[in-house]
Amino acid sequence: MPAPLRFDIQARSNVSAARSGVVTTLHGSFHTPAFMPVGTKGTVKGILPEMIERTGAEILLNNTYHMLLRPGPELVSKMGGVHRFMNWHRPILTDSGGYQAFSLSEMNAVDDDGVTFKSIVDGSSIRLTPERATQVQNLLGPDIMMAFDDCPPSIDPNVEEPTQPRLASAAKRDATSGPRSKKKVYDHVARLDVANERTVRWLERCLQAHARKDEQSLFGIVQGGTDLERRRWSAERICAMDCPGFAIGGVAVGEQADDIARVVRFTAPLLPDNKPRYLMGVGYERDILAAVRAGVDMFDCVLPTRNGRNANAFTSRGQMRLRNAQFAEDPRPIEEGCDCEACRTQRIGDGEGHFSRSYLRHLFMADEMLGPMLVTLHNLRHFQRFMGDLRQTIRTDDWTGFLTRWPVAAEGMTSHD
Amino acid sequence: MPAPLRFDIQARSNVSAARSGVVTTLHGSFHTPAFMPVGTKGTVKGILPEMIERTGAEILLNNTYHMLLRPGPELVSKMGGVHRFMNWHRPILTDSGGYQAFSLSEMNAVDDDGVTFKSIVDGSSIRLTPERATQVQNLLGPDIMMAFDDCPPSIDPNVEEPTQPRLASAAKRDATSGPRSKKKVYDHVARLDVANERTVRWLERCLQAHARKDEQSLFGIVQGGTDLERRRWSAERICAMDCPGFAIGGVAVGEQADDIARVVRFTAPLLPDNKPRYLMGVGYERDILAAVRAGVDMFDCVLPTRNGRNANAFTSRGQMRLRNAQFAEDPRPIEEGCDCEACRTQRIGDGEGHFSRSYLRHLFMADEMLGPMLVTLHNLRHFQRFMGDLRQTIRTDDWTGFLTRWPVAAEGMTSHD
Repeated sequence: MPAPLRFDIQARSNVSAARSGVVTTLHGSFHTPAFMPVGTKGTVKGILPEMIERTGAEILLNNTYHMLLRPGPELVSKMGGVHRFMNWHRPILTDSGGYQAFSLSEMNAVDDDGVTFKSIVDGSSIRLTPERATQVQNLLGPDIMMAFDDCPPSIDPNVEEPTQPRLASAAKRDATSGPRSKKKVYDHVARLDVANERTVRWLERCLQAHARKDEQSLFGIVQGGTDLERRRWSAERICAMDCPGFAIGGVAVGEQADDIARVVRFTAPLLPDNKPRYLMGVGYERDILAAVRAGVDMFDCVLPTRNGRNANAFTSRGQMRLRNAQFAEDPRPIEEGCDCEACRTQRIGDGEGHFSRSYLRHLFMADEMLGPMLVTLHNLRHFQRFMGDLRQTIRTDDWTGFLTRWPVAAEGMTSHD
Repeated sequence: MPAPLRFDIQARSNVSAARSGVVTTLHGSFHTPAFMPVGTKGTVKGILPEMIERTGAEILLNNTYHMLLRPGPELVSKMGGVHRFMNWHRPILTDSGGYQAFSLSEMNAVDDDGVTFKSIVDGSSIRLTPERATQVQNLLGPDIMMAFDDCPPSIDPNVEEPTQPRLASAAKRDATSGPRSKKKVYDHVARLDVANERTVRWLERCLQAHARKDEQSLFGIVQGGTDLERRRWSAERICAMDCPGFAIGGVAVGEQADDIARVVRFTAPLLPDNKPRYLMGVGYERDILAAVRAGVDMFDCVLPTRNGRNANAFTSRGQMRLRNAQFAEDPRPIEEGCDCEACRTQRIGDGEGHFSRSYLRHLFMADEMLGPMLVTLHNLRHFQRFMGDLRQTIRTDDWTGFLTRWPVAAEGMTSHD
């Protein structure tokens, strides 16, 4: 039988731990370092699969939590699995559902066996265990499945509020619990240790429960928060297990960019060199650059899609808020030279043109779907162009040139690179 | 200087007044009978121009009312006109804004000089006159502009409620004014006479005000409600003026299908044979078929887009409500044999498939944009395939064959065809 995952490293940087390669699955291959657009409920919001493909994306992420609640993994399985269901026939990765069970649900109770939470769809009580999370992903049928881990929100006593957009609910919880006391920090540290140990035991149970090892690859997840010794402890135990790839979890859950880079630089080398390394939920261009240089191969983030829907366009010089009045009469595309569906010149009939900032602003002011669609397409292409240039730069090691093309990624680098 | 509009009739039915031809504008040509998708605010909701083109649409309609309120015709003009603004470089037709000023605005006051209404965007008071409506369309820059007409809602004493979805606000007004009395019908008849006379005087003023006769074609509109003598009176006066095309207005404003067909069959032959005839706001397949057989060349309607967004898919056998539970596990495309983006087999990477009814239902249940997009694409293609078959059937006169392919169009025909 064919191996469900192969990783071929094709180039290595001489000045960093960065590497570029190809991951091959039963649904085709993707080039690394890779950025995976997020298709939460079995769709990248407002983007047809053929349009996703044209952005250059070769692998997507679906959220098990959302697919579990609706339409349900049994239905997706009956319809032939998530690839056929969403009509995307390239590789797909699903997370385990754990992160959303902890962060999205109003009420959740975690114990050594799993987590119980209230469905955000219909309020019903849902139970996720390592076995069920694995079964759900076996039913959905992605090429890469993630281990069910215990991932408590990060609390850094030096930081007032989580800074990542992803953590709205955690931020809310923190905000209502008042200033952090020493007791709180102590409790949190104890919680981290419990989570760390659980994550190891749960991975064993996931591997045990995994029923489609010939078709799907289950990645383990290293936890440990921002404490490097906990990270080492976790990496040693997690990476001792027989997984075809490993992820660094729990780093896009509220830390500062510096902390992300520090943890990633420490943790990435602890993961096996010959297997894909996946940094979950990261992130901004500078975070991706730092992680790639630390030897990370795979990324996912909601930034291009979520910010796109909110009229924030990524450019090589930073984000552009297209609702801003300054763009009302601006005939230029979002970014000159960008080859995305929104920016490039299109031929329609005998004429041709592009979508202007003026038009995009109009679409957002008029609450028209086409605005979110176009800026999402641009942002997805932005991240794919960024990754393509990273893959190229790993071969040339011209990082200075890279940063002149992507000044946005230099921001913050001075402090830690 | 080139003529801004040319109409070449290429085929005529031998058993009806139907004809097929080509209208050529400065932005290219379109085949008739033609169906124009509605791009209200300068966008067909959720559909990229290249996707519109792939449905087979060759001309779009924009609503002057909406573009007038936002972003404003002066801005669109500065950006190079509506073609460049929305990045659609094929023909565009705009209505005059009158219909929406009467039907959408909470408060409006019509007098011999024009109409004053409250903006639905910001509540400001807006004045539209024949001169301003013409100026606005000169600024927007469509290939075909419509005369500013007085178009009161239809009241048929035999009908309890207007039946077309387009008339929500008029239906509301009617519903609150209680059962129709003889006095009301009498008042309405007087109002129709006033409107009919005004529409003639206003067309003269529109033609007088039209400042881009070399580039844009202004169509006159025949009014007269459901009374055939009023229609004849209007057609004689309107068609005596020098317009490159004429429309039948005021027939999709609340009548029964029978009335639409009766009025159209009477009015269409009164319009010049050698100029395009446009039936405004119609409609369902059976209405279009009846009108084509009466010699109408152009149509527009919000049905494919509006119903598409609401999960109603048009098929050759009638509409399909995709939210219905019966489709939850249905792996079939909306309509077997349809070549639209939603139904046809698509190749993505090394695999291929289509969007199932099950998946489409999931998208609507999960409130995902992709659902409205896909069903809109299907519906737009449905109407374009319908029109293409009509154009073909005009050449062969095999109307029996046509009705076996489009049973949906036979419905109601028995009563009046």
